[in-house]
Amino acid sequence: MSVTDVPGFTAAGVTCGIKPGGKPDLALVATADAAAVSAAGVFTSNKMTAAPVLVCREHLAATGGRAAAVVLNSGNANAATGAQGMADARQMCQETAAALGVAAEEVLVCSTGLIGYVLPMDAVCSGIAEAARALDPDGGPRAAEAIMTTDTVPKQAVVAGDGFTVGGMAKGAAMLEPHMSTMLAVLATDAAAEPETLRSALRAGVAQTFNTLTVDGAESTNDTVLIVANGGAGPVDPAALTRAIADACESLALQMADDAEGSTKTVFLRVTGAASDAEAAKAARDTANCQLVKCSWYGQDPYWGRIASEMGAAGVAFDPARLTIAYGSHVVYQHGEPAHPPELARYMTGRRLDLHVDLGLGEGSARVITTDLTHAYIDENMGTS
Amino acid sequence: MSVTDVPGFTAAGVTCGIKPGGKPDLALVATADAAAVSAAGVFTSNKMTAAPVLVCREHLAATGGRAAAVVLNSGNANAATGAQGMADARQMCQETAAALGVAAEEVLVCSTGLIGYVLPMDAVCSGIAEAARALDPDGGPRAAEAIMTTDTVPKQAVVAGDGFTVGGMAKGAAMLEPHMSTMLAVLATDAAAEPETLRSALRAGVAQTFNTLTVDGAESTNDTVLIVANGGAGPVDPAALTRAIADACESLALQMADDAEGSTKTVFLRVTGAASDAEAAKAARDTANCQLVKCSWYGQDPYWGRIASEMGAAGVAFDPARLTIAYGSHVVYQHGEPAHPPELARYMTGRRLDLHVDLGLGEGSARVITTDLTHAYIDENMGTS
Repeated sequence: MSVTDVPGFTAAGVTCGIKPGGKPDLALVATADAAAVSAAGVFTSNKMTAAPVLVCREHLAATGGRAAAVVLNSGNANAATGAQGMADARQMCQETAAALGVAAEEVLVCSTGLIGYVLPMDAVCSGIAEAARALDPDGGPRAAEAIMTTDTVPKQAVVAGDGFTVGGMAKGAAMLEPHMSTMLAVLATDAAAEPETLRSALRAGVAQTFNTLTVDGAESTNDTVLIVANGGAGPVDPAALTRAIADACESLALQMADDAEGSTKTVFLRVTGAASDAEAAKAARDTANCQLVKCSWYGQDPYWGRIASEMGAAGVAFDPARLTIAYGSHVVYQHGEPAHPPELARYMTGRRLDLHVDLGLGEGSARVITTDLTHAYIDENMGTS
Repeated sequence: MSVTDVPGFTAAGVTCGIKPGGKPDLALVATADAAAVSAAGVFTSNKMTAAPVLVCREHLAATGGRAAAVVLNSGNANAATGAQGMADARQMCQETAAALGVAAEEVLVCSTGLIGYVLPMDAVCSGIAEAARALDPDGGPRAAEAIMTTDTVPKQAVVAGDGFTVGGMAKGAAMLEPHMSTMLAVLATDAAAEPETLRSALRAGVAQTFNTLTVDGAESTNDTVLIVANGGAGPVDPAALTRAIADACESLALQMADDAEGSTKTVFLRVTGAASDAEAAKAARDTANCQLVKCSWYGQDPYWGRIASEMGAAGVAFDPARLTIAYGSHVVYQHGEPAHPPELARYMTGRRLDLHVDLGLGEGSARVITTDLTHAYIDENMGTS
């Protein structure tokens, strides 16, 4: 149930001292034979782009989409760190490359943690050396642990395709992990796929899953999803590969939502009947990110008035007379008529809530996965220390 | 220091029983002689528009911008209430008109409170009759009290112009008052101004003040700012009128920020050097509404990395190498170089924070007034009961 469940990959997780308190903070995932194989990535569109994201893009461009290893650290995002940050991200790749006997461009790099602090490179370099020695065909779970920040559990997934496997690990509580910035995910597969095919499959899988997840609407400086494909299982149907990647991403995204900082509810919010899919997604995302809506879920309060108001404020085509809102099977507002069914109170006590808003206007639809806003979320984000 | 400090206006605030607990919940502001005078309004652009907003627009259109009275209730927003809600909002105007001997179209109406519940019209009607009897040249403070929802103090302002006066009252903690939806404001002046001039002055004043205030980024179903001008002081310079209206709105907006639900910080966030004023406003507003940024203010944590990240994610022209961020006089990030001055910790303990972000790209600038996100905010918004 980890990235190393895929034949031909090794991984390691070690403690090098970036994080206070001695928790694991450096991870490595590599091909077992140190061969550079097909690789692809999807990255944050935040313009305050962290150095490791810039270096990943450079390396994938230089190699035409090939990599032999991914090095990751937690506890420091290496973001807003200027020229020094770029040098440090490059050095992380060089140190990894030297330890594995590959080219620096064949190493990808991810960081997650505080923004605005230069990496302690002595610790990082000794950690890389130690992790390279510790690489193991059963090392996936230790790597998954070493990329955690405010996560309370590691996130891992394995999907069996038709004759191939996709495995993955992730960290993060959303688009953005508070303070400990970023969602990161590394996937591996033994399917054979050219870099271009792999990239298309990854983009499609991420669009349906990670990109429908929002905890606080913020997109981090470091968000990264990487995949490496060693080809050991031979060629596969591209559609089957896309499906398996999407399934692995869906599992990781749900694990993130269920472990989102301080959350007590995981909410599936579906919008249908919008003028377009894009308008459905805008209305769903705005509503999912509304503090007032999130507080009502935390309080188990079926206050759908908030949801109606957010839909009206989302800047999409909207007509109150055509609107329907349902919590699970309980319709609370239909075509201008409000209702407050008493059974709703019990429905609100579940960990997972299914909300459905139909705008009654067109064929556009979208789904988002989100969470509530709680006292514990504030506790986690009041301070960096 | 109230709306009735303006000569020629009367007001009242009474308890009619919409709110549980016997707090005042119905207010009336009227011209002393029941004459219809110049009037103008600025309303929410939320498409889930509450009935009273729709009725105000109808009446201002029908009269060409004239009104003799404004009737307001708190405790129920009369929003998402369908055809019944429209009938009830119209009846509130009719009852007020009958009590004052004016035409129903000469009455404007505002509601604030829960969304999705039909008004208790028996209580509302007896309240209107009582308030009409209680109208008083010193009734402003009682009216200001009767429109409060989660406000802890009434908000009132008086501005002395050159030979004229603008007085006002408001309620609300932002663009949107949680649950008890809405910011409402009623201004009165004895300046003489044609409806068109009055509307221009009001729009300009609101743009510079209320529209720069955001607590949670949500725009309510009911947001309304009204002004009535009885002309008692004779004609005035339109620029002077605009300035006085803006000053009154600025005072009311600051009172709202300082009393925003559960807030412990009022934050003035200024963005300069943007490609345009619109881009500056977008970046400022997105950052002001970021839960993570708000939590850091609450924790008195000068974690500017969050602010840099939000600026990069705002979808505006941005270059990390040209960015400067300052907390008060403390520059924390300049042109790619991070800093963590130790004096910042003390700066963060103030009730009011001045943050300045310079994007270093152009001449665009904007300011927003906002607040932090606190445990008490969640407490206030977890439930409607």
